[in-house]
Amino acid sequence: MAQMLADRRDVDFILHGQLKVEQLSAHKAFGDFNKKTIDLIVSEARALSLKELLPAHGIGDRVGVRYQDNNVFVPPEFHGIYEKLSNGQWIAPSDDARWGGQELPLVVTQAAYNYLFAANYPACAYATLTHGAGKLVEVFGTDKQKNLYLKKMYSGQWSGTMLLTEPEAGSDVGALTTMAEKNEDGTYSLTGNKIFITAGEHDMTENIIHPVLARIKGAPEGARGISLFLVPKYHVNADGSLGERNDIFCIGVEKKMGIHGSATCSMTLGTSGQCIGTLLGEENKGMAAMFVMMNEARLGVGMQGFGCASASYLNALNYARLRIQGRSIVADPKETNGVSIIQHPDVRQMLMTMKVYTEGMRSLLYYTAFLEDLAKISDAPEEKERLHDMIDILIPIAKGYVTDRSFDVCNLGIQVFGGYGYTCEFPQEQLLRDCRITQIYEGTNGIQAMDLLGRKLSMKNGKLFKELMSEIKREIGAAASIVSLQALSAELATAIDMLDEVTGFLFKNAVADASKGAAYAHATLYMEALGDVIMAWMLLWRARAASQALDAGAIKQDILFYEGQIQGVRFFIKRFLPVITGKLFAIKNLDSAPVMMNDKSFGV
Amino acid sequence: MAQMLADRRDVDFILHGQLKVEQLSAHKAFGDFNKKTIDLIVSEARALSLKELLPAHGIGDRVGVRYQDNNVFVPPEFHGIYEKLSNGQWIAPSDDARWGGQELPLVVTQAAYNYLFAANYPACAYATLTHGAGKLVEVFGTDKQKNLYLKKMYSGQWSGTMLLTEPEAGSDVGALTTMAEKNEDGTYSLTGNKIFITAGEHDMTENIIHPVLARIKGAPEGARGISLFLVPKYHVNADGSLGERNDIFCIGVEKKMGIHGSATCSMTLGTSGQCIGTLLGEENKGMAAMFVMMNEARLGVGMQGFGCASASYLNALNYARLRIQGRSIVADPKETNGVSIIQHPDVRQMLMTMKVYTEGMRSLLYYTAFLEDLAKISDAPEEKERLHDMIDILIPIAKGYVTDRSFDVCNLGIQVFGGYGYTCEFPQEQLLRDCRITQIYEGTNGIQAMDLLGRKLSMKNGKLFKELMSEIKREIGAAASIVSLQALSAELATAIDMLDEVTGFLFKNAVADASKGAAYAHATLYMEALGDVIMAWMLLWRARAASQALDAGAIKQDILFYEGQIQGVRFFIKRFLPVITGKLFAIKNLDSAPVMMNDKSFGV
Repeated sequence: MAQMLADRRDVDFILHGQLKVEQLSAHKAFGDFNKKTIDLIVSEARALSLKELLPAHGIGDRVGVRYQDNNVFVPPEFHGIYEKLSNGQWIAPSDDARWGGQELPLVVTQAAYNYLFAANYPACAYATLTHGAGKLVEVFGTDKQKNLYLKKMYSGQWSGTMLLTEPEAGSDVGALTTMAEKNEDGTYSLTGNKIFITAGEHDMTENIIHPVLARIKGAPEGARGISLFLVPKYHVNADGSLGERNDIFCIGVEKKMGIHGSATCSMTLGTSGQCIGTLLGEENKGMAAMFVMMNEARLGVGMQGFGCASASYLNALNYARLRIQGRSIVADPKETNGVSIIQHPDVRQMLMTMKVYTEGMRSLLYYTAFLEDLAKISDAPEEKERLHDMIDILIPIAKGYVTDRSFDVCNLGIQVFGGYGYTCEFPQEQLLRDCRITQIYEGTNGIQAMDLLGRKLSMKNGKLFKELMSEIKREIGAAASIVSLQALSAELATAIDMLDEVTGFLFKNAVADASKGAAYAHATLYMEALGDVIMAWMLLWRARAASQALDAGAIKQDILFYEGQIQGVRFFIKRFLPVITGKLFAIKNLDSAPVMMNDKSFGV
Repeated sequence: MAQMLADRRDVDFILHGQLKVEQLSAHKAFGDFNKKTIDLIVSEARALSLKELLPAHGIGDRVGVRYQDNNVFVPPEFHGIYEKLSNGQWIAPSDDARWGGQELPLVVTQAAYNYLFAANYPACAYATLTHGAGKLVEVFGTDKQKNLYLKKMYSGQWSGTMLLTEPEAGSDVGALTTMAEKNEDGTYSLTGNKIFITAGEHDMTENIIHPVLARIKGAPEGARGISLFLVPKYHVNADGSLGERNDIFCIGVEKKMGIHGSATCSMTLGTSGQCIGTLLGEENKGMAAMFVMMNEARLGVGMQGFGCASASYLNALNYARLRIQGRSIVADPKETNGVSIIQHPDVRQMLMTMKVYTEGMRSLLYYTAFLEDLAKISDAPEEKERLHDMIDILIPIAKGYVTDRSFDVCNLGIQVFGGYGYTCEFPQEQLLRDCRITQIYEGTNGIQAMDLLGRKLSMKNGKLFKELMSEIKREIGAAASIVSLQALSAELATAIDMLDEVTGFLFKNAVADASKGAAYAHATLYMEALGDVIMAWMLLWRARAASQALDAGAIKQDILFYEGQIQGVRFFIKRFLPVITGKLFAIKNLDSAPVMMNDKSFGV
């Protein structure tokens, strides 16, 4: 299975054929990253994934984490992985070199993380949480906080977490009750309980740095009264050495459907009244700080879910080529020899569905990261703003839609294996179980849909959506000039017009008191429809790039790959576009039954 | 959670309001089963499910089965369950009283099994496999075989299995290689290996009776050369006492995604050349015998998957009512109190989706069983044939479509719980894992879709489909006479016309050599569309029955239930019918990309 985890040709095609990321190297910020260097980095991530991370994927699931007396023990193999990720400088690959980052373009980091997550994202969680916590310190920390913590976090010497959720404050963060009281020395004493804390405790690093959301005594209720604190497991002396144990402890780990190797901890703060932290950023600005991190975090979760899909597809493809079962329905009835199941039309349509979603989602995730890179190097404020707008509207799709579809891909990935797919002998069922949480954490996909409808569509009077539409239309225009894509482009253009109309209709209803409830009951369906259209856009873009490569005279071994791109968009348009249109019609119906119905009519 | 597992009011509504099953009691075969008796039986199943089966659901998952030296040990609690199912005569509730059956209408057995499966279908598998094996003995056994085995199987004293799958013969049963050689005394010596054998070995009964598919030496290749044999774990003496141990052994159990309490065994036959069995039925007619059992077996699997959905929906509904989180988006913005999450439109649309599928599928499964009852008591050969035709065309939907949608319902059932749904603290994630196998075993859902397109549509020159259409149209006509359902009926009528046209189109392409592959690549999509239409039919029927009950003056506590039926069909028609139409358009596109594409274009 030479191409397991992620199809390298597809990864390279997106980087160089679709996005042409080498253009970044024209700017001094990315001057070092020519095509050769980028390819080397991807190769390194791929090798690390195959050699170190993948072999521990099933082990992490079977062994899981063990909790004992406030300690959490991860599978032994995870120690080596964390060390490799640290030493390979994979914790902060795109961050500031001053603090140990590598300043890679984010799009290259995405490609690298495609491999790492496809191999074993539960094992990577310890590193990615560390990065997220470090980023908070980088953006909101004082010089002192940065000097004390940041390099040791970005290098992996100390790990990080994010203490947000409480038993009664999940989607509604504003309901949290963890309290902070200011001490005379300017530090804060925290008391409270947090749950679902990934990597909250483990035995891989000498210290763990916890950003904690809490409410300062006397602060307003709700989200407006939340502040962010930095609470280390061990206090850190001025010289950087470890001090006393802080009063923050893990009191248990969750038993879960999947990601068994990722410790999901219940944490208690200040049971002895001695949990001391420092303010990170400003008082009562904790939620705002969270929002700054949200795009990165949600894009990361999208990639986690997608990593599972990426691996599941290639496993299924490989299995379908090797597994002999049944005769071909199109062969001579007298033929008695079995064929590999990839010959069966029903298996092929499953694989084709997996292929188009996998490729479309990969393009979208890389593209969203690429937009960040473009924004970073852009000197034109308007263009910078446009790029950030694009990112903002794409994020709920990159998280919500992508993890939903990744789950579907993983599910087909089981089905292609038949009964074997249900056994633990193959990775398919674990990939589905691991994938499932990505639809929930970092804002459930329902929250993503509401973010799209309630925030993103309304920002700047609908400018974000308009910018997205004109990007898609630009691609439709470009693809229409290619004979083999003309008719397909026209079909997509029709759908786009309808999407445009339905978006206006739904938004109008979402801001009117009388229809608000019914509109929000269609938020998820809308996210699905918009996501589908974005898939069509990505696939059309890919097919155009492939057509152009074919016209330019592709080498023999690439021709079938490029042809697969043209078949892919055709399949998507012919098979899924009518269904998307159906979803748009359903939104236009704006049925209010779910919101109007009496609660008791659901069942008594 | 008084209504957990299955909403009793809905169960009663289908039995008495929709299907009016009491009409069966007019016939002497079911003379004992008036409304009161039926309700008592359902109550008994419900009580047994809540008291005995449900408490062992999580235990079965955590403890699983243990294999050691050819023995399999099930969780201790399963012993009590098997005993209760045996003593309560739940193994053969609808079978011939001569052999220990209870001769209940099958529709009542369905209602009972709705509860049993919703509580713990993996624990029930030992009983249901026993019934299936017993049925083979009843239908194909000689008097001697029946006298030796049958009563002890239907009473649960001995259990049963079905040895069909082999490592290289899964969906393609005809490829099996287990051999049988006739001995001088008329018995057969079997040699071979079987896998994925549910209940193949366990420690709950003194004997296990294995029907085995094998090929008699010299028999034709493929499906035409397969015979069925009866192979007991312990030989049975003429007086019914146990004799020698037979040479059939379990050599391992699968580790699986779910149904951990259900033993999935690898079996080896004749390693010492001493596996002796008797022919069951005629030589080379083993596949035909399987087909006789298939409708019952597939309907049973549909109910297994549905049982998970049935429980998951009520758990989610209950959780959504109790869980306080977030403010209402339609409330005064100054309101700071949290609301139960059932107040959130996105949660409501999830619950509504779960509700309509759960209710529609429950109706379909009960109805399909009811058709069997009607056929049993019908004296008119034409009507009998029509009823069997209806069953034949509904079976792929009742198995394939129902388990697919049940999985979707279980998936929403996790999402409603948010992060908690991913933990093992709640049953939601286990229900999804348990449900997942039902899409695979007893013929994968791809096989169901091909059975629908390739066999059921072509049988009797399309008579089955025509009969189904006229049943649906009859309901549309009836519902159209009710004011509140008029417009909805008309919308469904339009979709039906399109379904009719697309069915003809797809079938025509499926029998033409040039388009066969492309047509079969749409078999699954077609099954989905037909299943959706059948859901709409069931929901319309239910809404009509509810409207009539309301008009007749329903008692207060029923009014909200009935109103929920009318809202339900409206929701389904407004929200899902446009998508169904989209799927039909997609079928009309009959894109051939998946079948035409070069294998290598899937990825290299």
